[in-house]
Amino acid sequence: MKTQKKPYQSARQRIAQNLVRVRGQVGISQEQLADLAGLHRTYVGHLEQLRRNPSVENIEKLAHALGVDILDLLAETAS
Amino acid sequence: MKTQKKPYQSARQRIAQNLVRVRGQVGISQEQLADLAGLHRTYVGHLEQLRRNPSVENIEKLAHALGVDILDLLAETAS
Repeated sequence: MKTQKKPYQSARQRIAQNLVRVRGQVGISQEQLADLAGLHRTYVGHLEQLRRNPSVENIEKLAHALGVDILDLLAETAS
Repeated sequence: MKTQKKPYQSARQRIAQNLVRVRGQVGISQEQLADLAGLHRTYVGHLEQLRRNPSVENIEKLAHALGVDILDLLAETAS
Protein backbone atom coordinates (compact mmCIF):
# COMPACT_ATOMS: atom_id res chain seq x y z
CA MET A 1 0.00 0.00 0.00
CA LYS A 2 1.52 3.31 -1.10
CA THR A 3 2.05 5.55 1.91
CA GLN A 4 0.61 8.98 1.25
CA LYS A 5 3.27 11.73 1.28
CA LYS A 6 2.47 14.25 4.01
CA PRO A 7 1.76 17.71 2.57
CA TYR A 8 4.64 20.13 3.10
CA GLN A 9 4.20 22.19 6.26
CA SER A 10 5.53 25.73 5.86
CA ALA A 11 7.88 27.39 8.33
CA ARG A 12 5.08 29.78 9.36
CA GLN A 13 2.71 26.88 10.09
CA ARG A 14 5.36 24.98 12.06
CA ILE A 15 6.22 28.04 14.15
CA ALA A 16 2.55 28.80 14.86
CA GLN A 17 1.76 25.27 15.98
CA ASN A 18 4.99 24.75 17.95
CA LEU A 19 4.54 28.08 19.75
CA VAL A 20 1.03 27.06 20.87
CA ARG A 21 2.30 23.60 21.90
CA VAL A 22 5.40 24.72 23.84
CA ARG A 23 3.71 27.76 25.35
CA GLY A 24 0.99 25.42 26.63
CA GLN A 25 3.59 23.08 28.13
CA VAL A 26 5.34 26.00 29.86
CA GLY A 27 1.97 27.48 30.85
CA ILE A 28 2.39 31.12 29.82
CA SER A 29 0.22 33.51 27.80
CA GLN A 30 1.11 35.06 24.44
CA GLU A 31 1.73 38.41 26.16
CA GLN A 32 3.92 36.87 28.89
CA LEU A 33 6.03 35.11 26.25
CA ALA A 34 6.36 38.27 24.15
CA ASP A 35 7.44 40.15 27.27
CA LEU A 36 10.00 37.48 28.26
CA ALA A 37 11.42 37.54 24.73
CA GLY A 38 11.54 41.34 24.60
CA LEU A 39 9.08 41.52 21.72
CA HIS A 40 5.90 43.54 21.16
CA ARG A 41 2.88 42.38 23.15
CA THR A 42 0.94 41.31 20.03
CA TYR A 43 3.86 39.69 18.22
CA VAL A 44 3.30 36.15 19.48
CA GLY A 45 -0.43 36.31 18.72
CA HIS A 46 0.35 37.41 15.17
CA LEU A 47 2.81 34.52 14.71
CA GLU A 48 0.25 32.02 15.98
CA GLN A 49 -2.24 33.42 13.42
CA LEU A 50 0.31 33.09 10.59
CA ARG A 51 0.24 36.87 10.11
CA ARG A 52 4.03 37.45 10.20
CA ASN A 53 7.19 36.36 8.43
CA PRO A 54 9.52 36.46 11.45
CA SER A 55 13.27 36.89 11.43
CA VAL A 56 15.37 33.98 12.68
CA GLU A 57 16.63 36.12 15.56
CA ASN A 58 13.10 36.78 16.80
CA ILE A 59 12.40 33.04 16.65
CA GLU A 60 15.65 32.52 18.54
CA LYS A 61 14.50 35.00 21.26
CA LEU A 62 11.20 33.11 21.61
CA ALA A 63 13.00 29.76 21.80
CA HIS A 64 15.31 31.09 24.55
CA ALA A 65 12.32 32.50 26.47
CA LEU A 66 10.61 29.10 26.27
CA GLY A 67 13.78 27.21 27.19
CA VAL A 68 13.92 25.25 23.92
CA ASP A 69 16.12 25.29 20.81
CA ILE A 70 15.13 27.09 17.61
CA LEU A 71 14.84 23.65 15.96
CA ASP A 72 12.01 22.82 18.37
CA LEU A 73 9.99 25.75 17.01
CA LEU A 74 10.71 24.84 13.37
CA ALA A 75 10.15 21.09 13.59
CA GLU A 76 7.24 19.58 11.69
CA THR A 77 4.19 19.03 13.86
CA ALA A 78 1.81 16.08 13.84
CA SER A 79 -1.30 17.93 12.67
CA MET B 1 35.61 13.91 33.86
CA LYS B 2 33.15 16.71 33.34
CA THR B 3 32.20 17.04 29.66
CA GLN B 4 32.58 20.64 28.54
CA LYS B 5 29.26 22.17 27.46
CA LYS B 6 29.51 23.26 23.82
CA PRO B 7 29.13 27.05 23.47
CA TYR B 8 25.73 28.05 22.07
CA GLN B 9 25.80 28.45 18.30
CA SER B 10 23.50 31.26 17.12
CA ALA B 11 20.96 30.86 14.34
CA ARG B 12 23.05 33.18 12.14
CA GLN B 13 26.18 31.06 12.67
CA ARG B 14 24.30 27.81 11.97
CA ILE B 15 22.76 29.19 8.77
CA ALA B 16 26.11 30.53 7.54
CA GLN B 17 27.95 27.25 8.11
CA ASN B 18 25.14 25.01 6.83
CA LEU B 19 24.76 27.12 3.68
CA VAL B 20 28.47 26.73 2.90
CA ARG B 21 28.30 22.98 3.66
CA VAL B 22 25.16 22.16 1.64
CA ARG B 23 26.04 24.52 -1.21
CA GLY B 24 29.38 22.70 -1.45
CA GLN B 25 27.65 19.32 -1.52
CA VAL B 26 25.28 20.49 -4.26
CA GLY B 27 28.15 22.23 -6.06
CA ILE B 28 26.67 25.65 -6.77
CA SER B 29 27.95 29.20 -6.25
CA GLN B 30 26.42 31.81 -3.93
CA GLU B 31 25.02 33.67 -6.95
CA GLN B 32 23.54 30.51 -8.51
CA LEU B 33 21.83 29.64 -5.21
CA ALA B 34 20.48 33.19 -4.79
CA ASP B 35 19.14 33.03 -8.33
CA LEU B 36 17.51 29.62 -7.81
CA ALA B 37 15.88 30.89 -4.61
CA GLY B 38 14.70 34.12 -6.23
CA LEU B 39 16.82 36.29 -3.93
CA HIS B 40 19.27 39.13 -4.61
CA ARG B 41 22.63 38.07 -6.04
CA THR B 42 24.56 39.15 -2.91
CA TYR B 43 22.08 37.80 -0.36
CA VAL B 44 23.70 34.38 0.12
CA GLY B 45 27.16 35.92 0.45
CA HIS B 46 25.87 38.27 3.15
CA LEU B 47 24.29 35.35 5.06
CA GLU B 48 27.51 33.37 4.91
CA GLN B 49 29.33 36.42 6.34
CA LEU B 50 26.79 36.75 9.18
CA ARG B 51 25.78 40.17 7.87
CA ARG B 52 21.99 39.57 7.78
CA ASN B 53 19.14 38.58 10.07
CA PRO B 54 17.10 36.62 7.52
CA SER B 55 13.36 35.95 7.59
CA VAL B 56 12.26 32.34 7.99
CA GLU B 57 10.66 32.46 4.54
CA ASN B 58 13.93 33.44 2.88
CA ILE B 59 15.64 30.55 4.67
CA GLU B 60 12.80 28.33 3.48
CA LYS B 61 13.39 29.48 -0.15
CA LEU B 62 17.10 28.66 0.17
CA ALA B 63 16.33 25.23 1.67
CA HIS B 64 13.95 24.45 -1.21
CA ALA B 65 16.53 25.59 -3.78
CA LEU B 66 19.11 23.29 -2.14
CA GLY B 67 16.67 20.38 -1.88
CA VAL B 68 16.86 20.20 1.91
CA ASP B 69 14.51 21.05 4.82
CA ILE B 70 14.75 24.32 6.76
CA LEU B 71 15.86 22.26 9.79
CA ASP B 72 18.97 21.24 7.84
CA LEU B 73 20.00 24.90 7.55
CA LEU B 74 19.31 25.60 11.25
CA ALA B 75 20.90 22.49 12.73
CA GLU B 76 23.99 22.92 14.93
CA THR B 77 27.20 22.30 13.03
CA ALA B 78 30.30 20.48 14.25
CA SER B 79 32.71 23.45 14.18
